[in-house]
Order: sequence, then structure tokens, then C-alpha cells
Amino acid sequence: MNYLENKVEDVQIAYIGGGSRGWAWGLMSDLASEPSLSGTVRLYDIDMHAAQTNEIIGNKLNELENIQSHWNYTAISSLKEALTGADFVVISILPGTFKEMYSDVHTPEKYGIYQAVGDTVGPGGYIRALRTIPMYEEIALAIKAYSPDAWVINYTNPMSVCVKTLYKVFPEIKAFGCCHEVFGTQKLLASMVKEVTGTENVSRTDIKINVLGINHFTWITEASYKGKDLFPMYESFVNQFYETGFQEDEKDHWMNNSFESAQRVKFDLFKRFGVIAAAGDRHLAEAVNGKWYLKDPETVAEWKFGLTTVDWRINDLNSRLERGTRLANGEETFELKETGEEGVLQIKALLGLTDLVTNVNIPNTGQIPNLPLGTIVETNALFRKDRVEPIMAGNIPNPIYGMVATHVSNQETIVEAGLSGNKKLAFSAFINDPLVTLPYAEAEALFEEMLNNTRKYLQKNFK
Amino acid sequence: MNYLENKVEDVQIAYIGGGSRGWAWGLMSDLASEPSLSGTVRLYDIDMHAAQTNEIIGNKLNELENIQSHWNYTAISSLKEALTGADFVVISILPGTFKEMYSDVHTPEKYGIYQAVGDTVGPGGYIRALRTIPMYEEIALAIKAYSPDAWVINYTNPMSVCVKTLYKVFPEIKAFGCCHEVFGTQKLLASMVKEVTGTENVSRTDIKINVLGINHFTWITEASYKGKDLFPMYESFVNQFYETGFQEDEKDHWMNNSFESAQRVKFDLFKRFGVIAAAGDRHLAEAVNGKWYLKDPETVAEWKFGLTTVDWRINDLNSRLERGTRLANGEETFELKETGEEGVLQIKALLGLTDLVTNVNIPNTGQIPNLPLGTIVETNALFRKDRVEPIMAGNIPNPIYGMVATHVSNQETIVEAGLSGNKKLAFSAFINDPLVTLPYAEAEALFEEMLNNTRKYLQKNFK
Amino acid sequence: MNYLENKVEDVQIAYIGGGSRGWAWGLMSDLASEPSLSGTVRLYDIDMHAAQTNEIIGNKLNELENIQSHWNYTAISSLKEALTGADFVVISILPGTFKEMYSDVHTPEKYGIYQAVGDTVGPGGYIRALRTIPMYEEIALAIKAYSPDAWVINYTNPMSVCVKTLYKVFPEIKAFGCCHEVFGTQKLLASMVKEVTGTENVSRTDIKINVLGINHFTWITEASYKGKDLFPMYESFVNQFYETGFQEDEKDHWMNNSFESAQRVKFDLFKRFGVIAAAGDRHLAEAVNGKWYLKDPETVAEWKFGLTTVDWRINDLNSRLERGTRLANGEETFELKETGEEGVLQIKALLGLTDLVTNVNIPNTGQIPNLPLGTIVETNALFRKDRVEPIMAGNIPNPIYGMVATHVSNQETIVEAGLSGNKKLAFSAFINDPLVTLPYAEAEALFEEMLNNTRKYLQKNFK
Amino acid sequence: MNYLENKVEDVQIAYIGGGSRGWAWGLMSDLASEPSLSGTVRLYDIDMHAAQTNEIIGNKLNELENIQSHWNYTAISSLKEALTGADFVVISILPGTFKEMYSDVHTPEKYGIYQAVGDTVGPGGYIRALRTIPMYEEIALAIKAYSPDAWVINYTNPMSVCVKTLYKVFPEIKAFGCCHEVFGTQKLLASMVKEVTGTENVSRTDIKINVLGINHFTWITEASYKGKDLFPMYESFVNQFYETGFQEDEKDHWMNNSFESAQRVKFDLFKRFGVIAAAGDRHLAEAVNGKWYLKDPETVAEWKFGLTTVDWRINDLNSRLERGTRLANGEETFELKETGEEGVLQIKALLGLTDLVTNVNIPNTGQIPNLPLGTIVETNALFRKDRVEPIMAGNIPNPIYGMVATHVSNQETIVEAGLSGNKKLAFSAFINDPLVTLPYAEAEALFEEMLNNTRKYLQKNFK
Repeated sequence: MNYLENKVEDVQIAYIGGGSRGWAWGLMSDLASEPSLSGTVRLYDIDMHAAQTNEIIGNKLNELENIQSHWNYTAISSLKEALTGADFVVISILPGTFKEMYSDVHTPEKYGIYQAVGDTVGPGGYIRALRTIPMYEEIALAIKAYSPDAWVINYTNPMSVCVKTLYKVFPEIKAFGCCHEVFGTQKLLASMVKEVTGTENVSRTDIKINVLGINHFTWITEASYKGKDLFPMYESFVNQFYETGFQEDEKDHWMNNSFESAQRVKFDLFKRFGVIAAAGDRHLAEAVNGKWYLKDPETVAEWKFGLTTVDWRINDLNSRLERGTRLANGEETFELKETGEEGVLQIKALLGLTDLVTNVNIPNTGQIPNLPLGTIVETNALFRKDRVEPIMAGNIPNPIYGMVATHVSNQETIVEAGLSGNKKLAFSAFINDPLVTLPYAEAEALFEEMLNNTRKYLQKNFK
Repeated sequence: MNYLENKVEDVQIAYIGGGSRGWAWGLMSDLASEPSLSGTVRLYDIDMHAAQTNEIIGNKLNELENIQSHWNYTAISSLKEALTGADFVVISILPGTFKEMYSDVHTPEKYGIYQAVGDTVGPGGYIRALRTIPMYEEIALAIKAYSPDAWVINYTNPMSVCVKTLYKVFPEIKAFGCCHEVFGTQKLLASMVKEVTGTENVSRTDIKINVLGINHFTWITEASYKGKDLFPMYESFVNQFYETGFQEDEKDHWMNNSFESAQRVKFDLFKRFGVIAAAGDRHLAEAVNGKWYLKDPETVAEWKFGLTTVDWRINDLNSRLERGTRLANGEETFELKETGEEGVLQIKALLGLTDLVTNVNIPNTGQIPNLPLGTIVETNALFRKDRVEPIMAGNIPNPIYGMVATHVSNQETIVEAGLSGNKKLAFSAFINDPLVTLPYAEAEALFEEMLNNTRKYLQKNFK
Repeated sequence: MNYLENKVEDVQIAYIGGGSRGWAWGLMSDLASEPSLSGTVRLYDIDMHAAQTNEIIGNKLNELENIQSHWNYTAISSLKEALTGADFVVISILPGTFKEMYSDVHTPEKYGIYQAVGDTVGPGGYIRALRTIPMYEEIALAIKAYSPDAWVINYTNPMSVCVKTLYKVFPEIKAFGCCHEVFGTQKLLASMVKEVTGTENVSRTDIKINVLGINHFTWITEASYKGKDLFPMYESFVNQFYETGFQEDEKDHWMNNSFESAQRVKFDLFKRFGVIAAAGDRHLAEAVNGKWYLKDPETVAEWKFGLTTVDWRINDLNSRLERGTRLANGEETFELKETGEEGVLQIKALLGLTDLVTNVNIPNTGQIPNLPLGTIVETNALFRKDRVEPIMAGNIPNPIYGMVATHVSNQETIVEAGLSGNKKLAFSAFINDPLVTLPYAEAEALFEEMLNNTRKYLQKNFK
Repeated sequence: MNYLENKVEDVQIAYIGGGSRGWAWGLMSDLASEPSLSGTVRLYDIDMHAAQTNEIIGNKLNELENIQSHWNYTAISSLKEALTGADFVVISILPGTFKEMYSDVHTPEKYGIYQAVGDTVGPGGYIRALRTIPMYEEIALAIKAYSPDAWVINYTNPMSVCVKTLYKVFPEIKAFGCCHEVFGTQKLLASMVKEVTGTENVSRTDIKINVLGINHFTWITEASYKGKDLFPMYESFVNQFYETGFQEDEKDHWMNNSFESAQRVKFDLFKRFGVIAAAGDRHLAEAVNGKWYLKDPETVAEWKFGLTTVDWRINDLNSRLERGTRLANGEETFELKETGEEGVLQIKALLGLTDLVTNVNIPNTGQIPNLPLGTIVETNALFRKDRVEPIMAGNIPNPIYGMVATHVSNQETIVEAGLSGNKKLAFSAFINDPLVTLPYAEAEALFEEMLNNTRKYLQKNFK
């Protein structure tokens, strides 16, 4: 890297999963829009063809007029080569294929267990974890060997499990996980301010929050907008929209989009516990008692959120594959568009070019005093030159502490089980998930069936 | 008190709930059998007549030939007088009457929620807590005023809530809670050793354990008998008796006695999590996912434990009342009988006459590092002259950590709510109990109904 | 307060010690320069005349042309009235008079103990603490009674002791302590960057640091300027200037100004321990082994810092008194001048008008994991709407941990002793200070003599 | 091992430093006196001849009439062979020779620094540590390789450094350190009880204490004898004997024996801080401010303890060597004599044959909450089957906390420096010791001279 006045050139970014259709394009857009950085993105993917397509797409950006900086993209076929000399490592992969994801999401339905996403907790989340952990073990060992000083940014789910695995395998790693779910809740609060006060142009980043918890099960305990406490406003807002739910416009209506919701789960949790849940309803519903929001499809419909089917995901990928082809062969022109992600801002801050306060997933060193040290938690942190300094977020408030601790405990267990290949230990977490209310024998049958469907990705000595 | 050579005379014990038919007689028996102590027991009870009856019964013991020491019993009508000058305070009360207990246990059944005891967690446990907390607030204030240096031994349930209230109201109190549920599991392990190895005379106190958790939801992570690790033996034992359950003899068969069980819940939890649950099955079943063992009466029967009805309790009390009358008027002679409780041994140790290691409920000062400081936890402790020194028990193992944390969190919440009279806060714990899988509106209706049934005992400003 | 668009009107500030000649004028200047705030400053002082003089001076500012906002100043004779309705409370007092300070600083010289300031640690610091604690107890009780929700900013020394007393007496207080000593070290680093690289206009606030420790004994473990790590540069810089010391210009030469130094103590500590001490040399010298830098006046001269005599302070005050008269009667016109203090910025941030990261003295909730919880520590914090959120600073590095812990321990002891009036306990801290290398009897004689000189300010029951 | 009824046969003990003249003979005596254990002691020593001599001496014990059990002794020349299959490992070595110890103790005298022992802290302690750490690294690696499940008992000084090194190199090791210094203070308290009350036969083990701190700098915060609090008695006792000191009889008079003292240091520390220091005066004097008790030989004489010269140690060893020859060739008959050490009792307890509460040096897992986790601390622990469970000892009381923390910090530093060979880091601890009040340059010169004298034992890459 070369430091010039307020600018850093020749930044080396290794992108693991660099063949991605979606996240990779977003990063390209954000990098091209940032004047203070330039350098090279090394695209590594087990699908080399996909990486090469993205190399073409990425380099085409340099032809655009409205870019603020130039970046080189290069597909690289070896992890070693991609990592050596990297200043930053971005990880965004799909662990396994849609076939395994199909089993994660839909096999439990045979036992009456419904999941809205199936990638974080619940039966699907744990099996996905067991598949992902060996991949992250390999990545962590490679980083240890080839780029031990690089900053590592993870986007893959299950987030906490991925980040924990990195730290367990290579404790000195400088890794953190990023997720935009909290931003979504900040946006909801911004919409509320508009709705209630009529103020225009309420920016997400003006919604100041204290956030704490674990990824996809995060909670806001303080929120303000230009000095105004938003909790009393939220209480009225929840009461007003509790039955109907709240949605700004129809295009993203929950019935039309399996990622949307009417926020009813979030509102119900606020009525129960008095704190603002800060993730999408689909994730929240999975993290709590299975009888509350995911009892059966009718209950889900009442709560006005969608179950994300894997068929939907397959269709969605197909459109993105087609778009990738068009972008690569020039049929479609890349349009720069702010993603709302903060990866590039984080890189700037870690290079010392700016200060940044944002939420991030890292090991607990005390920022949440009532969770065990070492747990991967999500709170605000201050990003500065080569440092991510957590901001003290306070205790997880009672009584949600137990719900959070349950997932913390299960995630710690599944990482240990995934690394050591201890099936019995893995099962003890699986059977303890709030969605798994099955008797011992049925839980065991489900577990075995799901394991079989993902067997080839498990730790070699898994038994 | 007077210290003689290996003996202490004139020990003053205040017994709150001293009209008790049961615990009080047990204490009388244990005191009379202990040669190194003598003194006075001041019987305080809101039912003065009951205390006076026990005064008569207690003083009659001094006529027995086989007693080892003399104790004076005196009924006292004022808490102030009972406490002033006391060296030890024993608290063993029934919070409210069987009428309120009837509501605790049976009202939730209308909503499909079954409880085996209803005095610790679950809807019954929380409502009972809200009733008990103001009583313990009053007791703590009286101790602070009249006997701040006395050691306070609590036997009342909900144990953790009672002890927490004492410490919250009077942080310098020297209080701890005693419970024999762990002893029961030690006895099961002793029976196992007999069953498996044929050894006779295996004593409970020779089963050395490391125990940790919260009252009625305690876990054994290490167990040995004369240097032999008992975990491998227990694993085989569980597998052998998993379906049938294990009971030593018919007289205490679970079908005939609502306090007994065939240990099937304990065995199932071991298969799930690999640690030995150390409380009666009735308590354990209530502390976990309500669908596992308490789904409906048929499920309960399959798991071979009994639901303790309040009708049974009323009948049982009637027999004890009659016995009390007979003991007082001399129709029946008091027989000394070791209770197996350790209260008197603890008193001896606190007076410096012996060392004692036993399990006890006290605030967490780090003996369980992954539970919040101040939580009332149950672990081993070393009793010595004027000190109860907790022994480091280690972390609650994953994955049961989340289940324990859930109750820790709810109990902290309920104590805060009970003291401050914050109904909304109380409800947030109630609705978060694993047995309460109801939608918001139904949970609220149940909560209101149960509150109404116990309203006169609630904190004055409860709203 | 009234929130307008990006501005808050009618902010109420209570200034305890509002008769101050120095700090008060600085605050007036900073407030007048800040366009987003306006309101009233209530000047409370035990010297009512001084407060009235400042009322006149403060209100005259509104006649200046270059002010950005209007503030009303009003002298108030009762603490109750000054506090009631206050949004912020500023405390900046002189505990006792120069007579007592004379004894703090100079009595120990009779026993061969030299102090450079005598207001934080050392014999002088502890006696000053015993005098100050009862005053802060009174202030804390008044805040609890009259303005429990106000933010309290302390500037008085001994800083840690004052802030600790506030929290001990009123645990829910929202107080923090501000000190510019760390800024001084940032300025030194900025000067270094200029000196070494020739860069002009290096701003203190561009020197990004991680700072941790206790007030006047704070340490920098990370420092960067525009992404450049400053530690290697500082190592060379220290080696270059170790013998000569470093000073930018002659006007502030250490020989001419008892507040200045040539940074030799700071350089020597860096050579010993490899971290950057972040306070003035005068304070640092007092906090460590008394034989290192304060053995005798010759040693002090070699280390090139000054002993701040009380005579100097008296002369200095006289000039300021004269200036006050001139300002009040119009002989001298007040000139707005940025103080470099951050009090007004902190107020803005606490009102939600901006985010601010700066160093601050507050109770340890884990931001320094290897110091006890509750200790008053100095680290960075994020200031936001109604919150001061500490940033995790990491452990005090070995081997300076012991030196810091010694003062932490002594300060905790002296606060407890000062509040309870326990002379024996106070002496146990006094005799444990690194400057007090006296035998028991001599230490006792010194302690008694110093106590006598400040007796009327001690806790009433002090014995 | 074979478990019989209340007896364990074929216990395998590896003794590293098994050629010792002193400790080894004591262990032989204690083992022969314990009826419930028998087995083999493998004597390993870099001086094979010494080990062989002890093999002869040990096996001769089996000819004695009054032994309670038979033990085989066998000298083994390889660490691997000695450890493989061992159930227990005892480590008691002399790190280096008297030549290096001479430098440790006497070189600092040239700089005006006097040490009474020089094996724990002070310049001598740190240099000895740097010499010992590589030896313990080797031992830890061998235990990891050949006997990872064995319990390891360390007797070598510097105790904390040795035990820390074992855990740092092999974190799963089951090691603890034993030291009889605390017993000495219990004996002093027993003597006091005899002296004051006239009671005969006051046993050390009847003096119940709460002890906490680090080895050779341990403190008693609670002490009782048969239920009687000993602190008030100690306060009077200290006042009575403060000037004269206290010694039971002349044979062990401090002037005649460099291990004895008149307890004046202990008494002075009690007057200063109100807690009972629980180590010999020689160790205590070294751990605190160098000007208090070790200013010069005259000061030492006033405080009535001896400086243990290395010449004395050489003479003492010569007598023991001669005695060893006599024991081996039968000129002298071995006499069984209780050593007062508890090693054999600890082994019994770890085998599950008994419960034992005693003081021990192990990593802090929270037993002393205000010292960092992982620090090697000394507190009581409960020994049971295959477990050493620390008993919560509470915080190091203010104001001694800082003194203890200083050594904790230095010892952590020296272990890190010793393992990594980081000379600069080692010096930062050396220069921070309370005895080293030297300017930077003089401290550096002393450090270099002492390092040179022990250079061949340092970590290979030490620089």
C-alpha cells in the first residue's frame, strides 16, 4: 500500500467467493465510488469460471465515466496466491449448494418444524453450520499461513459460527463480521420518524442506536434522532400498527417478497419485552419459541412475513446468472449504485483515513458483560487505524438474556462439535434449539436424515 | 453464646414460620441429636397458635432419654422480639394459603399448561414469587433492623427468588438457601453403585460431586465414589433403565406417591446433554421446554412422574395437623429420626466447630463464571467459622447454559418486578417461561386471572 | 431545553465553583463561540462575591460582536436553587485554601519527600483527598436531591477521588471527569510529527490514540497520524532527545514555567516500559517510585521539570484576581479564545447534536478488563445523546499494571476512609504511596502533622 | 494403579530432581508413613549419581520396622522413561548451581540492593526466573508428550513463575505448586494462642484461615481457632511484641539461623495494613518497598531477620551430602519423621481417598476476583478425586492490592520474556521491582552483569 495525502493506493483485497453474483457486484460499485482508495481485487472462487466472469465485469467498470477510482480485478485459482500479500480478505461464500440448502429448510417441515430462512439457527442453521465449519477451518489456516496480518471481513451465514471458527482456528486473526440487518431496523425507525413527525429526509445514519446481541438476534436498547429519544414514539407506533403491521409501500409488500415483512414479529417482541428487536422478522421468528410465530404456515401468514423457499432462491439465482452474462458480454452496462453496505467505509477507517462507529460481529471482550468472553457478539465499535475497538454496550437486558444465551450456548457447542467432528455434541445443540420441540427419538431421526443430506461436507472424522 | 471446649451453649435460633408441621419437627429432632450445641429456638409464626403448639412439642423433647442436648422452645408473637439477639434465623414459610397455591398450579391447566409442582418456575412459580417477595422484603428489613449479624437459612420456595430478595433488600445479609434435591440425586447414584457393583452401605455422603446451577435446576458435572469416576457407570445405567425407569422399591413407587418418579426425565436429559441433572424429575420437567415432558397428562404418565395436586397437599397437611395435636397433648411420643437435612451441621460449621463442604444457594461471586455476578446459584461451598466460602464450580456447560440462563434471567426480572410492583416487567418474565408457549393475548389473560387470585399478597403499589 | 433544528436553546448549566478566575472564563469563551447552544449559567460559589463578579463578566460577553450565541449568567447563593432544573452541572472548585495546599506540598519536604504538584497522589494528594471528599459528598447529595438527571462534569483534582465520591454517594449519578493532560501528550506527538517529517498544521485531534489508565497516570498504547503508526517514530525521537529533553520554544521553557517540562520523565518511562505516558512530567514523576525523579531538588533539575510551589500559585492567583476586576469594571475587554478544552463539545454530544470520541474519567465497567470494576479509569468514550459509552481500551500492559494498580488501590481506600472518617484506613493508603518510603513512626508523624493542618475540612467523625 | 478397599497400590510417582538431599528424603519419610498408598518412585536427576544414591536410601526404608507401606525407588536416566505411565510428577530442582545463585544474591549488593533470599522477586528472583523458565519449558513439553494426564506438584522457586511456565507451555496440564510458608504463619498463630491463653497442644491445622495472594507474598484475612476469631488477639499480640519481636525458643533464634526471624516485619506490615502477612519475614521484606526493611544491613538487623548468604547454603549442602553418603552406605539409619508437608495428603485426596482443604498455587479462575484470570495465585482449594477446586478467597484487600499486583505484573512479564527470549521485556520487569530504585543506566548495568553470570541457562535466542 502507498499512503498519499488522504488517499491510499495499491490496496490488495482478496475476495473469497469472488465469483458471487450479487455481493461482488455491490462491492465493485462501492469501491468505484470511493475516491480515497484504489488497488486490486483478487477474485478467488471454487467456481473459477464465475470468478473469471467477475474479473471481466469488474474491469469493465474502469470504462465508466462516473467512477471515482480505478480498481483491477483478477481471478486467481489458488487460495495461497489470492491471500499472499493481501491487506484485506473478504469472505462471502455459499456453503454447499442449493441441494443441501433445500434439505436444511424443508426436511424439518416433515416433522412439523417451519423455518423462515434456515441459515442461522434452527435445524437448518445447525446443519448448515456443520457444513460450513470445515470450510472456515481451511480458510482460517490459509489466512494464518499466507496473510496473518490482513483484516478479514466476513459476510457468510451463519455469521457467528463463521467468525467464531476463524478465531478458534487462528486466535490472532483480525476478523469481523458485517451484516445489514441492523440497518434495516434503523430504516424502520427513520420511516417511523417520517410517518409520525412528517420530517423528510430522515437518514438511517442519523438514527443513533445502542445495539447488542448476536447476529440476526440483535436488540436496540437506546435510539434517538437529533437528540430526541425514540422509545416513547416507538411504543405508540407499535400500538398503532400492532394488528395491521407497517409497510411503507406496496412494491415490497411481504406477500410479494419473501424477504419483506410487515414488522409484526418485531412489534410483538416489543410488547413482550420492551426492547426493539433489530433484525428482519424472518430471522427473529426463528430465534424464539417455535410456537410463537412459526407454529404452522397459517400462523406465519397471520404474522405477515414470508417463508423463504429454496425454489425462490433458485429462481432468483437464475436471474442473477443471466444478468452476469449480460454484464460480462456488454449487453448490459454496470450502473453504480450505493449498496448501503459499509464494507468500504470500514476499510477506509482501518487504513486510518476516517473514524467510523458502526455495528460489527466480533469476540466479546467485555462489551456485553453478561455474555461469556469469546462469544461472537454484535455491538457498535469504533473503527480506527488497524483497530476495531468495541464500545461497551451493557448487559443483555432481562428477560431476553436467556433467549440470547440459548443461542450463544448452542453456537459455541456447534463450533466445537463441527471442528472436532463430535456428532453427539452437535446433537446436544440441535435438540436444544427452541424450534426443536421433538421427543428424543424423533429429533434423532431428523438429525440423521439432515446429516445424510449434507454428509460430504462434514468434518472428515465426523461421527 | 458461650464457647466451651468443643461445645457451644446458649445458641439463639429464630424460626420464622415456626408453626410449621414438618420442617420444624425435623429441626427439633436434629437439634436434640447434636451433642455440641444447645440453646433456645424462638418460634415465630403468623399463626401464633401453631407456634405455641410447636413450643409444647419442642419442650417435650427434653423429657426423652435418647436426646444429646437440651433446647428451649418459645413461641414469640413479634418478629422484632424473635430476631433481636438471634445468632441464626431459619425461614420456612408457606407464602399465602392453599387457595392461592391451587390457582398457581391449576389455573394454567385451563390454557393447556401442566405443572408438576408450580412453586419454582412456570406460571405458578412466578405468581408465587410475586406473592412471596413482599413477605421476604419485610423479613429482610426486620433482619437488617434487629439481627444484622445473624446467619439466615432459607428453606422456602421459590428458593432463588427468596434468597435474592433478602440480598437485594439488605445486601450485607449473611443468608443462604438449603435444599435437599441434590441429596436425592446423590442417593440415586448411591443406589446405582449398589445395583451395579453389589456394594452394600454406600452412603450418600461418599458420593463426591461437583454440582452447579440454580435451585431445582442443578447439574452434576463430576461424580465419584471412593476414587471411582461414576460417569461411565451412569451412562450404562441410563441406557439400561431408559425405557422402564429405575425405582428401588414399591412403597415409593411414582404411581403411589406424587413426590416420587422413576427418574426417566433425568435419564432423558442425560441422553440429550451428557450431564446429570440433580433435582427431582418433577422439578426438572418444569424447567425445560414444555413440550418435552409436560405436554399433557398422558405424556407425564409416560415419563413416570406425578403431578403434585393441591388436593393431595391439603390431605397431607390434615394428617400432619392431627399428628401435631397428638404430639402436643402427649397421645403420640416424638421419635428422634435423622432427617438427612444438613441445617444443624451447617450451624456447627458456622460456629467453627467443624469444617463442612456441601451445596448451598448464595449469590454468584464467580463460582460459576458464565452466570452473572449476583445471581443466586447453587454450588458446593466450604462452611467455616462465620463464613460460607463458595467453591469454584466452573462454567455451566454448553448447551444447557441457555436453559439455565433463561431461568436466571426470569428470576432476576421477577424479583425486580415484585419489589418495585412493576406489572409489565413481571409479565415480561412470565411470558418468557418455557412452559408459556401462548400468544400474547392468551398469556395476558392467564396472567391477569392468576394475579387476581393472589392480589392481596402483591406489593402494595403493584400495577 | 428547546430543541430547534440543529440547535438547543435554554440549556441550564449549574457551575459549582462559579466564582473561579480561570476555568469559568474559559467556559464563557467556549460557550459564546458555539452557535448551536444557548441558555443560562448559574454561578454558585461559597465566595458569593466572586460569583457576582463572574456574573458581570459573563453577561458583558453578550455585547461582543464576534459571539455565536447568547448566554445569561446569574450568581446564585444556594446550591439547591443552582441545581434545581439544571441540565448540566460543572464542578470546578479549590478544596480549602492555599494555606492547606501549602501544607500538602511543603510539609513532606521536612521529611525529605518532594512533590511536583501534590494534588493527586503522594502525601499531598491524599490529604487533599481527605479534605475534598466531604465536599463532594455534600455535592453528590445535593445533586441526588435537586438534579438527579443532570449530567455532571468534574474538573477538580484529585480527579479520580472526586468522581469516585460522586458515584459512591449517588450511584445513579451521570458524572464524568475531564482533564486536558492527555491532550498535552497528543500535542507533543503532533510536534514530533512536525519536527520529524516537516509537515505543517498537524492538529492534536488528528493524533488518534488508544489511551488507558487513571487520571494523571494515563498511557497511550496505540498512536497514529493519518494512518501512520507513530510508535517507531516516537522510539527514535526519544532516543534523540533523551538527554537534552524536547521543547518547542523558549517562552514555555521548563525553567521559566513551573507547569512546563522538557518531557525527560516521559522519555525515561518510555525507555523503561515501551508505552507512552500521557500526562505532564510533573504528574508522572509523582506517581512512580520516589527515588526515580523526585529524590531531591537536584534530581528534579536533572529531569528538567519544575516543582510547582504554592508561592507561585498565590502570585498567579493575584494576577488573575486583578484581571477579574478589570474585566468586570470594563477596564479590560474579554477576548474570545479557544481554550482547547472539550466541555462544550461534550455538552453538544450529550444533547445529541453530534458524535464525539474523547478521553474521559468514569467508573470501569470493563473498558479496562484488568482493573477492578467501579474503579475510576480514563479511556476513550463515545459521547452520544444522553450517554457516555466507554470504548474497550484493553488491559493495562505489564509491567506498568502494578504501578497503576497501586494508585487505584490507594484511591479506593482513601475514598472509603474519607467518607467513613476512618483514620487508620486513610493512613494505610498514605503509608503505601510510592513517595512515602518512611518508617512507620515517621510516616505517622508526617500524617498527623498534615492532618492537623487541614483538620477543619475533614469528615466530621474523622478519627 | 489398583484400587483396593480404601487403599491404592502401584502408584507411579516421577520425581524430577530426584537426587535432592532434603526434599526427597522428606517425601520418602511421608510416603513410608502412609498406609493407604504404595507404589514406585522414579528418581530422575541431571545428576544421575545423586539419583542412584537416593535409590539406595529409599529402598533401604523397606527394611525399617515402623513403616506403614512399601515403596520401590528406581533411578532413571531419561525424562521420557521417568514420565511415561506416571500418575504423579513431583518437581523439585535447583535451577543452575550455587555459582549462579551467588550472583543472584550478591551482585546487587554492589549497587546497594540487599536481598534476604533472592529466589522469588528482586533482581535475584528475576534472573533466577530467566534461568529456570527454559528448564520448565522443557519439562512441560515432556509432560505433554509422555504423561499428559498426570498430576504435577511443583516445589521449586520462583514458584509462581515455574507454575505459570508449565501452564503457558501446556495449558491442559494438571499442575499446582506447594509451599509451606503459610503453614509457618499458622504455626505462629498457634504459638500465639498458647502464649496468650495458655492452651496446650494447639495444632497448626486447627488454625482455620482464609489465605490469598501470590506465593511468598500471601495474606490471611480471616483466622480462627475453635470458633474464636484470632484477629483481635493478633492485634494485641503485635502491639506487645512489636519492638522486641517474638520467638518461642533460642535454638531457632534469628541470629543463629538465617531462616528464622523475630516476626518483626510481619508485625510492622500488620500495623500498616491490618492484614496478616503469611510468609517468612525474609520473603516479605523482599516483596515490598526496598527502603522499609532492606535499606542496608543495619536496617535488616533492626528488623531481626537474617540475610541468607550463599556461603551458608554451600555449607549446609555439604552437611547434607555427607549425610546422604552415610544413609546410603548404612552408617546412619533413616528415621521416619513427619515433615509437616502435605504432598502425600494431596496425592491421597487426588486419588479420591479423602477430602482435603489446603492452600495451593494454581491459575486464577476467579478465586481472587481482582487479580487477572490466569495469574498464578495462592488460596485454599478443595482436593478431591482428580480435581483441585479453588475456594473463593475474595479480593486482595486495599491497599495491599497494588503491592501484590506489582509482582503479579512482573511475574507475567518475566515468564513471557523468558519463553520468548525478549531481553527488553525482561528488563522492563527487572527495573520495575520495588527493590530496584536505580536510575535507568545503573539498572541496565546491573541487569547486564547478572545476565552474563547466568548466560548459559538463558533461552537460546535470548536477546
